[in-house]
Amino acid sequence: MRSILILGAGRSASSLIRYLIRNAGDQQWRITVADKDPSHASMLVAEGPAVATGFALDATDGAARSALIAKHDLVISMLPAFMHMDVLKDCLALKKHVITPSYVPDALWPMDADFKAAGLTVLNEMGLDPGIDHMSAMRILDRIRAEGGRMEAFESYCGGLVAPESDDNPWGYKFSWNPRNVILAGQGGAAKYIRDGETKYIPYHKLFKQTVRVAVEGFGEFDGYANRDSLKYRSHYGLDEIPTLLRGTLRKAGYCEAWDAFVQLGCTEDGFSMELPAKADWSEYLDAFLPHCQECGTRGNLASYLGLDERGAVMQKLDWLGLFDKNNPIGVSGRSPAATLQHLLEQKWKLGAQDKDMVVMWHRFRYAVEGQHQTIHASLGVIGEDTMHTAMARTVGLPIAMACKLLLNGTITDRGVLLPLKPVIYEPILDELETFGVRFTEEEVEA
Amino acid sequence: MRSILILGAGRSASSLIRYLIRNAGDQQWRITVADKDPSHASMLVAEGPAVATGFALDATDGAARSALIAKHDLVISMLPAFMHMDVLKDCLALKKHVITPSYVPDALWPMDADFKAAGLTVLNEMGLDPGIDHMSAMRILDRIRAEGGRMEAFESYCGGLVAPESDDNPWGYKFSWNPRNVILAGQGGAAKYIRDGETKYIPYHKLFKQTVRVAVEGFGEFDGYANRDSLKYRSHYGLDEIPTLLRGTLRKAGYCEAWDAFVQLGCTEDGFSMELPAKADWSEYLDAFLPHCQECGTRGNLASYLGLDERGAVMQKLDWLGLFDKNNPIGVSGRSPAATLQHLLEQKWKLGAQDKDMVVMWHRFRYAVEGQHQTIHASLGVIGEDTMHTAMARTVGLPIAMACKLLLNGTITDRGVLLPLKPVIYEPILDELETFGVRFTEEEVEA
Repeated sequence: MRSILILGAGRSASSLIRYLIRNAGDQQWRITVADKDPSHASMLVAEGPAVATGFALDATDGAARSALIAKHDLVISMLPAFMHMDVLKDCLALKKHVITPSYVPDALWPMDADFKAAGLTVLNEMGLDPGIDHMSAMRILDRIRAEGGRMEAFESYCGGLVAPESDDNPWGYKFSWNPRNVILAGQGGAAKYIRDGETKYIPYHKLFKQTVRVAVEGFGEFDGYANRDSLKYRSHYGLDEIPTLLRGTLRKAGYCEAWDAFVQLGCTEDGFSMELPAKADWSEYLDAFLPHCQECGTRGNLASYLGLDERGAVMQKLDWLGLFDKNNPIGVSGRSPAATLQHLLEQKWKLGAQDKDMVVMWHRFRYAVEGQHQTIHASLGVIGEDTMHTAMARTVGLPIAMACKLLLNGTITDRGVLLPLKPVIYEPILDELETFGVRFTEEEVEA
Repeated sequence: MRSILILGAGRSASSLIRYLIRNAGDQQWRITVADKDPSHASMLVAEGPAVATGFALDATDGAARSALIAKHDLVISMLPAFMHMDVLKDCLALKKHVITPSYVPDALWPMDADFKAAGLTVLNEMGLDPGIDHMSAMRILDRIRAEGGRMEAFESYCGGLVAPESDDNPWGYKFSWNPRNVILAGQGGAAKYIRDGETKYIPYHKLFKQTVRVAVEGFGEFDGYANRDSLKYRSHYGLDEIPTLLRGTLRKAGYCEAWDAFVQLGCTEDGFSMELPAKADWSEYLDAFLPHCQECGTRGNLASYLGLDERGAVMQKLDWLGLFDKNNPIGVSGRSPAATLQHLLEQKWKLGAQDKDMVVMWHRFRYAVEGQHQTIHASLGVIGEDTMHTAMARTVGLPIAMACKLLLNGTITDRGVLLPLKPVIYEPILDELETFGVRFTEEEVEA
């Protein structure tokens, strides 16, 4: 028997836990799900009472956390990213393997030698993005290189969206993951990418203006905007010489232009509390970011300030949010502009009980082989089952669960701090993901 | 004999030290100037060898710093703001009065009772802005209130600029103080002000677009842009009910529209190092912030991206900086966009050996008295003597020196954490400043 501890049973843990439970018999696993909400943990283990147990844990309680970790062979940390270093230090001290869907914290790389010396594997960035993006890109990159191809451009976009069948608002968006991250997306420094050999920087206030249009057959048309620091993937992917490299985020076509209105106004700022009472209405919220104008109404003032067509698609999206309705009180006070806006969007962009979410990923590879320029598009679209087993939970959770299997059954033998960049990891996981409907479509297109 | 210690003999300390030396005989003062550069300290005390001594001190060396403080009666800290709390803690422990030109650190207010109990005064915000702005505003506000006036609006602007006689570049700007602060001005959160009872927020990327035009006779025409958090002055100034309150910064007319080009591009970002070799030229620097365009040159691409007239005033200012000249290498590498730009501007905006700087301050008071609306404009223009005794050094240093006199001669008897908001401080200092040519001109204008 091998024992697995899952720390944190949030939105993305459902499909992960279901997979572990369903494989527990074959694999001889015993599973513990620890969450600060014990009812949440119990619900997720209900399918497998013989093999899985829910446990109440405040993961910030170091003594309780390490006592629990000590009783297991492998830890899957689904905790918020800022808590990972504490868990990783416990796992090193207690000699446990660990898998996370989060970016490698900078402070983890210096511990690589210690994990190796202890015979331990720390497998990071094992979810969707980062995760499936790495694996699906590396599989095709390795194939192109094996054929003697020289990479000229790699672009990769991903989005967590709403399924077309549940898309009933003009934004084409509902929350399938952390709303706060959606509101603050793109903040924290310029986005970086490489185009034709030049490193390019896009400041936040230009980010949602510089979009590309991406179409994925059967799933829709999307806006792609640059996501943080594309440069850090150069050496991971063996693309140090590539002239064009960009990673981005997808939203439904038209979303970015409208979201940019909030960015331009300053509504997504998160560094100060607003001076507005809860009974103020949303037009007063907008007025706080608009130049003073006695005679113009909020709607006209906003359209004129941002240079928007009052009858255009952006104003229609703002109208739909009720921002200009009188007697539509904000309902909260003392929050930042971003957190105040989030309060509205959580009501308007809620994934309903009957709604399904969608995950879309799209890669473009341009390369030269024997003097010929080639282009491959690879795309993935996944529709959620329901509000529990969302496409997001499936694509984040299943690769982690499969990696857990590969690590415990001895397929993954590398030790130290890893990303899923090698065939020994990505081949079996991408193959098995296809059996769960997580399947990329590839096409060669005219360059 | 009373002894005064000046910590930090930077650009703004020259006129302060000259005043102290010239008054040392009358006032029975002994002066120590401590700086990490002993030759700098020696130069500043050269005029008064009998009363003033230069001293080499690394102010981050706590033991050396407190040993020196222990030997004096009063400390004037001209150190960078981040070092003030260490000095303030020393002064409390060693029972010394202290004067600074810096904003009150948040961590200082809780120490107010301790300073009071120790019979000590900590006089902050005692320079130009903050400093002379507080004193000149409070003198007029107190007078208006004494006449029964009810304040309707207070706006206050200040700028450290170049004198008209030395203004020989299209930006109308040269550095008379910390260049880094000029490049980063306005960053670190939205600017806040109040207009007709509404609290307004301006995000950084809109700051240099929302300017007002200010004319000060004899000194020129200026752009004023909002400066940080105007709201925090409400209670200091007794203006909790005022419908309009704005503090801002002045630049020569036309500067802000051109500076905004850098802001829009992202050239003022300071959070990451650029990937450009030192031999790259300035057009490559700009290209890094521009959309890719094979066929357009940098200048045309920039003008089109920002919607600028290629023959307009903004492009003329950028041209003058040599940004589009071929074979004009950047000369530094691995710096942030802001620090890279600073390297260019320090060459182009250097205050020459024969140049004079200028300080301009402008207040507008609107109020009602006996049913009549009244408006007062109060303006100050100060031209520097030379590159040592700049207008900036004079207006920052003299109020501190005069406050030192008032504190040591017993005129200021309040203890604890103080700002210069009371007549006992501002009356004698504003009067004495007039004898040094630092004199406000007031006019009543049509409301």
